[in-house]
Amino acid sequence: MNKKELIDQIRIKKSFLCIGLDTDISKIPKFLLEFEDPIFEFNKRIIDSTKDICVAYKPNIAFYEAMGVKGWESLKKTVDYIPKDIFTIADAKRGDIGNTSKKYAQTFFATYNFDSITVAPYMGIDSLIPFLNFKNKWTIVLGLTSNEGSSSFQNLALKNGNKLYQEVIKISSEWGNSNNMMYVVGATKSEDLKKIRKILPEHFLLIPGIGTQGGDLKEVISNGINKDVGILINSSRAIIYAGDQEDFDVISRKEALKIQKEMLKYL
Amino acid sequence: MNKKELIDQIRIKKSFLCIGLDTDISKIPKFLLEFEDPIFEFNKRIIDSTKDICVAYKPNIAFYEAMGVKGWESLKKTVDYIPKDIFTIADAKRGDIGNTSKKYAQTFFATYNFDSITVAPYMGIDSLIPFLNFKNKWTIVLGLTSNEGSSSFQNLALKNGNKLYQEVIKISSEWGNSNNMMYVVGATKSEDLKKIRKILPEHFLLIPGIGTQGGDLKEVISNGINKDVGILINSSRAIIYAGDQEDFDVISRKEALKIQKEMLKYL
Repeated sequence: MNKKELIDQIRIKKSFLCIGLDTDISKIPKFLLEFEDPIFEFNKRIIDSTKDICVAYKPNIAFYEAMGVKGWESLKKTVDYIPKDIFTIADAKRGDIGNTSKKYAQTFFATYNFDSITVAPYMGIDSLIPFLNFKNKWTIVLGLTSNEGSSSFQNLALKNGNKLYQEVIKISSEWGNSNNMMYVVGATKSEDLKKIRKILPEHFLLIPGIGTQGGDLKEVISNGINKDVGILINSSRAIIYAGDQEDFDVISRKEALKIQKEMLKYL
Repeated sequence: MNKKELIDQIRIKKSFLCIGLDTDISKIPKFLLEFEDPIFEFNKRIIDSTKDICVAYKPNIAFYEAMGVKGWESLKKTVDYIPKDIFTIADAKRGDIGNTSKKYAQTFFATYNFDSITVAPYMGIDSLIPFLNFKNKWTIVLGLTSNEGSSSFQNLALKNGNKLYQEVIKISSEWGNSNNMMYVVGATKSEDLKKIRKILPEHFLLIPGIGTQGGDLKEVISNGINKDVGILINSSRAIIYAGDQEDFDVISRKEALKIQKEMLKYL
């Protein structure tokens, strides 16, 4: 999916919501355990009940990998089940030396056919280029993350006056452009979001941390939005685990709608 | 495996060689493709022919993940096949918010029973703690990597005078100790290795980049070694792809022996 198609979807659906499919076998409703593939069954129902009000799904790969071979099967079925007009994000946070990053890129872009993947920047340019070399795919770089520990290193003060995360964003954004790169920007820090929008006026920002991690929705939207909307707001646990009975998908939809209603005001 | 056991193995085998099992279906000898699981068959023969002269094996997870479900099966069989007195490293470079890192830790430490995993530091303390919380397991943090792109960010000058990689090592080393943490230190930069040894006198350093990536073995050893030896030198492609015929395992052993002979001088 290219940038124009993504923006079109946002305008059509009046939503820039991304739903995180962090599907954990120990947290899904118990009745699903009777099914042959409970993880896929859960995802399928969440997708069926939210696909008209979100523009992206983001499975966090850790949750599938932890299930071993069965988890990878559930992941493949899930990605294949997501309608083609919805943007898919492999939240994998990969990054390695060139020949290895190429393998990761093949895995998520070709084998699993994701539109995009999240990557960790620490290893530098040659760890990201193999992802950027894939045509019609997106590389989503960790800029400023939403977890508490993000301050351990991302906020370190550099000699040139920038914080590390600002320099990471500035430098890495030169390796691609706003048609093949996005940035993860934690919603818990609105002041920083303003600064990042100045460095990246054109790029899409993937903003996690709404809900469980405590980010304020209105503030985040008003600080992050640009002329193309330019933000994808992710919510995972607050939506997918809102219910724990047979009607969990109905309750998840309600939670997703609450967020989408707020988004309406800006579209 | 604990630190004392690892040091004992190094003394017994007179080797601190780690062999990287970056097994790529397109690079292994063609005759192996006849086997039911060519990747495992390749690894098995490399292990059989080198297990008495190395102390660690390090499969890079990207190569297995790229094979889909079959790759994870080959990985499991490989780890199970490695003798228990050999240290195992999941070269996965993972790192995510706390509840997600916990999943990754479970995957590699419990499901696959690796002794250790490599992790990316960018997300900070709460992305590493879930790995450190596993008893009798090791967290191997990317300090200074051996790829060219490492200079994109790792060498950034901080306000306090340190380079980023020095600060990452200094700060993160306080989250654990030399009994549960190691650091990846690229062999291509011997000057930096000296500096790192000053910050971490007690820790084991995992040193990739010998061979294909151009590090000089003697220099690396003399700059890195400490009273407990304290280094694991990794070679991947230069050993495992030394031959491409039916006797590839014999040729791999010869290459491994060349490195181990150099190590002998220091033990």
